[in-house]
Amino acid sequence: MKFATRMERMQASEIRELLKLTAQPDIISFAGGLPAPELFPVEEIAKVSHDLVLKEGRQLLQYATTEGRPSLRAKIAKRMADKYHTNVDPDDILITTGSQQCLDFAGKLFLDPGDVVLCESPSYLGALNAFNAYQPKFVEVPTDNGGLIPEELDKILETTPNCKFIYVIPDFQNPTGRTWSMERRQKFMEVVNKHNLPVLEDNPYGELRYEGTILPSLKSMDTKGLVMFLGTFSKIFCPGLRLGWIAAEHSLLSEFVKIKQSADLHTSNFDQGVADAYMEQYDLDEHVKEIVALYKHRRDLILESMEKYFPAGTEWTHPEGGLFLWLTFPEGVSARKVFNKCIEMKVAGVIGDAFYPNQKTDRSMRINYSNMPDNRIVEGIQRMAKAIKECM
Amino acid sequence: MKFATRMERMQASEIRELLKLTAQPDIISFAGGLPAPELFPVEEIAKVSHDLVLKEGRQLLQYATTEGRPSLRAKIAKRMADKYHTNVDPDDILITTGSQQCLDFAGKLFLDPGDVVLCESPSYLGALNAFNAYQPKFVEVPTDNGGLIPEELDKILETTPNCKFIYVIPDFQNPTGRTWSMERRQKFMEVVNKHNLPVLEDNPYGELRYEGTILPSLKSMDTKGLVMFLGTFSKIFCPGLRLGWIAAEHSLLSEFVKIKQSADLHTSNFDQGVADAYMEQYDLDEHVKEIVALYKHRRDLILESMEKYFPAGTEWTHPEGGLFLWLTFPEGVSARKVFNKCIEMKVAGVIGDAFYPNQKTDRSMRINYSNMPDNRIVEGIQRMAKAIKECM
Repeated sequence: MKFATRMERMQASEIRELLKLTAQPDIISFAGGLPAPELFPVEEIAKVSHDLVLKEGRQLLQYATTEGRPSLRAKIAKRMADKYHTNVDPDDILITTGSQQCLDFAGKLFLDPGDVVLCESPSYLGALNAFNAYQPKFVEVPTDNGGLIPEELDKILETTPNCKFIYVIPDFQNPTGRTWSMERRQKFMEVVNKHNLPVLEDNPYGELRYEGTILPSLKSMDTKGLVMFLGTFSKIFCPGLRLGWIAAEHSLLSEFVKIKQSADLHTSNFDQGVADAYMEQYDLDEHVKEIVALYKHRRDLILESMEKYFPAGTEWTHPEGGLFLWLTFPEGVSARKVFNKCIEMKVAGVIGDAFYPNQKTDRSMRINYSNMPDNRIVEGIQRMAKAIKECM
Repeated sequence: MKFATRMERMQASEIRELLKLTAQPDIISFAGGLPAPELFPVEEIAKVSHDLVLKEGRQLLQYATTEGRPSLRAKIAKRMADKYHTNVDPDDILITTGSQQCLDFAGKLFLDPGDVVLCESPSYLGALNAFNAYQPKFVEVPTDNGGLIPEELDKILETTPNCKFIYVIPDFQNPTGRTWSMERRQKFMEVVNKHNLPVLEDNPYGELRYEGTILPSLKSMDTKGLVMFLGTFSKIFCPGLRLGWIAAEHSLLSEFVKIKQSADLHTSNFDQGVADAYMEQYDLDEHVKEIVALYKHRRDLILESMEKYFPAGTEWTHPEGGLFLWLTFPEGVSARKVFNKCIEMKVAGVIGDAFYPNQKTDRSMRINYSNMPDNRIVEGIQRMAKAIKECM
């Protein structure tokens, strides 16, 4: 059998093989990105599902429109306005099978082989994989502790042809945990406006802020219809219902709708109904507050443990929210060696190189802290500290 | 903004515009393909959902494996063996967001621009749209009342380079309602074996047989790992849960798994759990019997009404199962004209040309009979008969 040429780029990678090692049951794994299941509103969802199916099962269990459940789209538009200062019409929202699906669709909509996708350096692995199926070239935009550096983006755009879009996560980025300042956001929008560059703004964690206030989204500053905002219920509700969305200017959204229709007709109507009814009957904001309290505690504990146990020279980010932080090992200390030593000691993170489409540094590691009880956090960081020391 | 070249092929079509007309609320529409919602097991699903979430909500609402829920994959493998004589390992099944998603994935896996997809002439519109995103050439294989003609396929394969796969619906085909005989199936497998041609066997309706016995699937006759079998719960359970699957030889399935992972991570774990628990606690076979009884009645009534009211010269297929039949108008009678007249008279089908990727005949129409009460069937066919007569 002869596959499409794109499949050459989707083969088993070193990183994929290494990730398998982190899934062994006796390992304390900081490698995942799972929400804390102990906070899922299980009883509420049981009740809501039952009542909803009885109330409107004949419609709920039937085929539905590609765009998504109207009352859910309305709630999302309102929530975006409340949280992220946007002004999005419910008709300009498409419900997707998780926000991962939006990444695939963006690749499908924009990319011919050889076209350029810009992204933060480093960036979310799952997005790089999704775009990869459409055979682009990746150009990495330099970042610092304040996030993407707009001046560097401007320079790249001046000299790089065929840039189709830029993919960014301004809030508590995956993998680094960094957040762009207000000033960076404004400057960024100036640059993309100057070059008419479409922007994929991925915001899975924005509501999970542990200090300060939520910053306006890029979408809220968009005057030219360039920004596509991706949202999800996976981190504020639960990911087993596959529910994400894209909000985009109307003519752009209608292209996504066409793609959605031929890709899977529509998102589970049942899942959509359950999220909608939950928000109708319960207070999602109160639920998010509980998540924030727990994750803030875990973030504080992991930062404190790193401070206490990690050897001098190892650096890490201090995320103001989200699920991840980013370790940088002292010069000369190989992340691959640390990773292997960690696996021996039954602890794991993700080697940072997974998140760079082009450059390899072998000096960093992504750490997740949302899915772990206190004693495992402390024990895991102690083991990791030992592993780092042994590699120095 | 500059989109990918594939989007030129996904623009609004004449057919899409015409389909919009059929959705007006005062029209008796035979244009859809919806199951009868009055048969959805609403109370059972309400109960099952409630109990399942309480019992295993912490896992059910969490991220899950890309391949799908193991106990559901096991049930599907067993059901395929019982109904379609296959011998598929549960590990060789991937659960998808409806079987529509398998069509998109097959395009993604096999097709570079310009590659050839073979299909029955006519074939399912949704499949053609899904493949279209990957810019293939379509080659139509001639059919007759017995389904695809294997000798014609052989001739085409002898002379056509870059044939990547053939897409077929051997049971109660969409749009024609035709079913391949056992002999045709055997001969077809000889031809694809000879040419090593991968086969996408789509079987959404196989269990909905109103007379005779279910025939072995192509997959059950596959000795070379060429056949990918697509199944769905949409027609035997309900489509609002988006649940389909692909069964394929292991190394081939693992390619689909990679594609699935970057496309939407996994299918709704909630939907999967509900279908699984329903099959655990209730008798899906008994439920399918009810569906078969109702649709058989509707098929009989629509055939009888056509016999009674349609003018001489109009022909139609007599489906042994499934949801559709196929009208052919007398020579010189334009299907577009009939369609327009039908819309005036508040009745609708789908113009047959929608189902041909290349050739246009303007003589046929697809009719759905699963979603309509008796009086509307009779009234609709009377109106349509009048429209046909006025176009003669």
